[in-house]
Amino acid sequence: MEAITKVKSDIEIAQESTMKPIVEIARKIGLEENDLELYGKYKAKLSNEALAKIKTKESGKIILVTSINPTPAGEGKSTVTVGLGDAFTQLGKKAMIAMREPSLGPTMGIKGGATGGGYAQVLPMEDINLHFTGDLHAITTANNALAALIDNHLQQGNELRIDQRRIVWKRAVDLNDRALRKVIIGLGGPLQGVPREDGFDITVASEIMAVLCLAKDIKDLKLRLSRMVVAYNDKKEPVTVGDLGVEGALTLLLKDAVKPNLVQTIEHTPALIHGGPFANIAHGCNSVIATIAASKLADYVITEGGFGADLGAEKFLHIKSRSAGIKPEAVVVVATIRALKMHGGVQKSELVKENIAALTLGFANLQKHIETIKSFGIPVVVAINKFITDTDLEVKTLLDWCKLEDVPVALTEVWEKGGEGGIELAEKLLTVIEKEQNQFHPLYELSDSIEKKVITIVQQVYGGKNVEFSSKAKKQLLEFEQFGWSNLPVCMAKTQYSLSDDPAKLGRPMDFTITVREFKPSIGAGFIVALTGDVMTMPGLPKKPAALKMDVDENGNALGLF
Amino acid sequence: MEAITKVKSDIEIAQESTMKPIVEIARKIGLEENDLELYGKYKAKLSNEALAKIKTKESGKIILVTSINPTPAGEGKSTVTVGLGDAFTQLGKKAMIAMREPSLGPTMGIKGGATGGGYAQVLPMEDINLHFTGDLHAITTANNALAALIDNHLQQGNELRIDQRRIVWKRAVDLNDRALRKVIIGLGGPLQGVPREDGFDITVASEIMAVLCLAKDIKDLKLRLSRMVVAYNDKKEPVTVGDLGVEGALTLLLKDAVKPNLVQTIEHTPALIHGGPFANIAHGCNSVIATIAASKLADYVITEGGFGADLGAEKFLHIKSRSAGIKPEAVVVVATIRALKMHGGVQKSELVKENIAALTLGFANLQKHIETIKSFGIPVVVAINKFITDTDLEVKTLLDWCKLEDVPVALTEVWEKGGEGGIELAEKLLTVIEKEQNQFHPLYELSDSIEKKVITIVQQVYGGKNVEFSSKAKKQLLEFEQFGWSNLPVCMAKTQYSLSDDPAKLGRPMDFTITVREFKPSIGAGFIVALTGDVMTMPGLPKKPAALKMDVDENGNALGLF
Repeated sequence: MEAITKVKSDIEIAQESTMKPIVEIARKIGLEENDLELYGKYKAKLSNEALAKIKTKESGKIILVTSINPTPAGEGKSTVTVGLGDAFTQLGKKAMIAMREPSLGPTMGIKGGATGGGYAQVLPMEDINLHFTGDLHAITTANNALAALIDNHLQQGNELRIDQRRIVWKRAVDLNDRALRKVIIGLGGPLQGVPREDGFDITVASEIMAVLCLAKDIKDLKLRLSRMVVAYNDKKEPVTVGDLGVEGALTLLLKDAVKPNLVQTIEHTPALIHGGPFANIAHGCNSVIATIAASKLADYVITEGGFGADLGAEKFLHIKSRSAGIKPEAVVVVATIRALKMHGGVQKSELVKENIAALTLGFANLQKHIETIKSFGIPVVVAINKFITDTDLEVKTLLDWCKLEDVPVALTEVWEKGGEGGIELAEKLLTVIEKEQNQFHPLYELSDSIEKKVITIVQQVYGGKNVEFSSKAKKQLLEFEQFGWSNLPVCMAKTQYSLSDDPAKLGRPMDFTITVREFKPSIGAGFIVALTGDVMTMPGLPKKPAALKMDVDENGNALGLF
Repeated sequence: MEAITKVKSDIEIAQESTMKPIVEIARKIGLEENDLELYGKYKAKLSNEALAKIKTKESGKIILVTSINPTPAGEGKSTVTVGLGDAFTQLGKKAMIAMREPSLGPTMGIKGGATGGGYAQVLPMEDINLHFTGDLHAITTANNALAALIDNHLQQGNELRIDQRRIVWKRAVDLNDRALRKVIIGLGGPLQGVPREDGFDITVASEIMAVLCLAKDIKDLKLRLSRMVVAYNDKKEPVTVGDLGVEGALTLLLKDAVKPNLVQTIEHTPALIHGGPFANIAHGCNSVIATIAASKLADYVITEGGFGADLGAEKFLHIKSRSAGIKPEAVVVVATIRALKMHGGVQKSELVKENIAALTLGFANLQKHIETIKSFGIPVVVAINKFITDTDLEVKTLLDWCKLEDVPVALTEVWEKGGEGGIELAEKLLTVIEKEQNQFHPLYELSDSIEKKVITIVQQVYGGKNVEFSSKAKKQLLEFEQFGWSNLPVCMAKTQYSLSDDPAKLGRPMDFTITVREFKPSIGAGFIVALTGDVMTMPGLPKKPAALKMDVDENGNALGLF
């Protein structure tokens, strides 16, 4: 166990690494300094001119990284994504990474960044995990400017006859702040606004985040913003941003946030980190603009979806791919021995002990995700993210099982070894992409009814039996039909911990029913969210928030961040 | 009148101008690319290393630009500040401008930026007026992270025994949003926080903005943040950021915001635009770090105070100068014929007509401010910011009056002509600085009681007779004595429109009494705010907000911003 105690923290490894000037990184992918808008020496946005210039280039191959249902044991999906990019680079391939940008709220709440780990990190991790290039601040500002304009509309005569009880646009902060979940605003008399119930979401839950991530360009961004439904009027008809006439102002506030951010890994592989919507009430992938830009600049793009394959990959394939006109050439499903043992019934405190029986039981969860990806017609490779406590027998058992299931598998040790630890995975992917036929197809058609879309996902992706729609949900579907929203894809808001809607059901639950209690239309983003169970859109802080350890020295260097 | 209709808008002039790369601008003041953290091609922050490097250099001369009491006619103080910098440059002097950065709220509310006007502007005006380098977003985030940490402390057992009715720390948004002035938060049951009254200020009213602007370096910033009082406990003792143990996290969030931003004027004069606290409940000047940096990099630094000389200049001299250990070599008092006529009783709609009688009556306002600056022992020059509607006789009358008063005066036409229109003013300043003795001294001592400080300002700066303290204010002074806060300077929160506390009393009111209804301790910033009348810390939006005209074209260019 001695090795464990010697392990360096992510921030120590990051701060000991030497970054190259971002201009140099850009040159590796054919971009000049003039194509960049620098944010310091190591971060840059791609200019609109650069994005226009590369538009007509041929597209590289996209590889999607997803995982089994997450457990408290940790799977390391982002770490594998980063390490895999470095592995491709080590193999002499022109590779790029396209990832989500982190939210500040969780950073200050519970220790843990979102920029990979160990020797598979994107840099500068302190900046990326704090304000980065200000994208989330721009989204927060646009979100709250819209809210202020709605309340001002009420105050100034309410020409659109907005029903103040039916305003669905909430305010946002990029923080964990439970006291803002339910609030009453507009108190203090007639000069201080119209009193009404309101609430704050964390910024990544704002529809504007989803809109920014699905927009193809600035024109599409403005169009999507104008379609966002903010309230209903006294006839219960939707009132949109376009009705308020402020889509131009919102787009202006987002004109720089919509440009993807270029950074590098510890091993200097270029990475675009851009956009980060929730994977429950939104689609959980980095921006379309970044993924497409990466595919124009590199031959291999490694990107990821949020949570496990049942949420992140399903949404990547049904929502993002469809909207952007892209398709992944292969999907990596990340698993760890530890997490599989938890899916097999082991408690977190018992994970250090070898347990072949539990591991074998846990395979069922991995199996379902492999089946799902295959049902989309895409080749799949399993990545076992190795931990120091995994025993040889456990590893052998898993490898044997994969062989039996006829699925390619690779051990990865990217946390410890960087790209070198992902070479095997990269090589397996290259083989699979070359050999296997990619016959990507969605599991449902947009012309299917909303009910049918939900049922398809529940049965074919979750392995469930049935879907129950609450009476409220049924009533909403009739309204949506009337508003012309039925052709939109569905975005499932479900617990990430289980294939079912019960977070306690690990492994591969069977014969379960999913209850859709309500729909939430995200017309700007272009999907209908189906809410199953409670979805937390504003996290709280723990008893001892990570903020208590955060500091900065006299020279401005971040301390205690991770 | 034909000339008026042909006049270009500020944004047209700005977008027709050609900026030089900021690296080139930096070289003019002895900085290399390595000293900068670039934000695109035309904006940069000075690095901590650069700030450390220039620390020991000799200081240039600081010139403070202030004005008569503002009127709806407009005085153009920022425009004169910018044009004066350009004029010094045209005269072959090494000059820099140090100004406040604008708040987004007013930009989206009422048409009008804060980056000068006409041919005397700082660029890129679209960026500076929108997100700029993210300083205000970082301040908003730090402000709201602190609020979330306070509410989380209540939720998690309230170890410090904070009285939830006596939490004085408010939340913030950088927007005009009247519906957030008075709110109730923490609703929804025991898992959603502790219900309590709260409110939002606009970001520039956050004490963190004042703290950032008065901090000398990152160490001083952390110290000031830790001193901020956020609440009182059940024994009515102050609870500070230091008690919560989160000054490190707040400083970390501000580690880049504390670095000054370098931009350029239309004529390529270097300008530091950094920090922008309110001039009523705060001190209304750009950051100490920026002003001192500019004084190390240039021989002449043109800077400004907020509102008129009774607020902005008084606070610059009593709060900022004292705290930073700087002194201005001369003060410019900006006036316009139009505004002086309003002080003489003319309505705005009648301003185009010549009115010598009203103009002469209006001189009284200018006279008081000249007297005040002289009483601080600093040379003063009057700048008449010329408008096209000023008649020759009006101009002559004003010039004659200045001669009679024995105060140097210069006409400026910087809006129309840029630096060339400020040459006369610059030359007068050079003469005054060379000839006149600068015997700068504050009007009160820090050891004076708070009451005495207020009375001194009211009598010597406002020309009032008396001060009445409410019973609440008197009670507070006893508490402050007990908490050891009596040695802090006073920051007056008074209407900017009048020397008195009645905005309708223009010109030079006499024999008036000022009522201090309450004090607000800003212990982190290091001053005690004296509130006279209502002070608006969260503006509202007008019936037709400027946001309705804001837009962006398909190439990402701002439209309809001003």
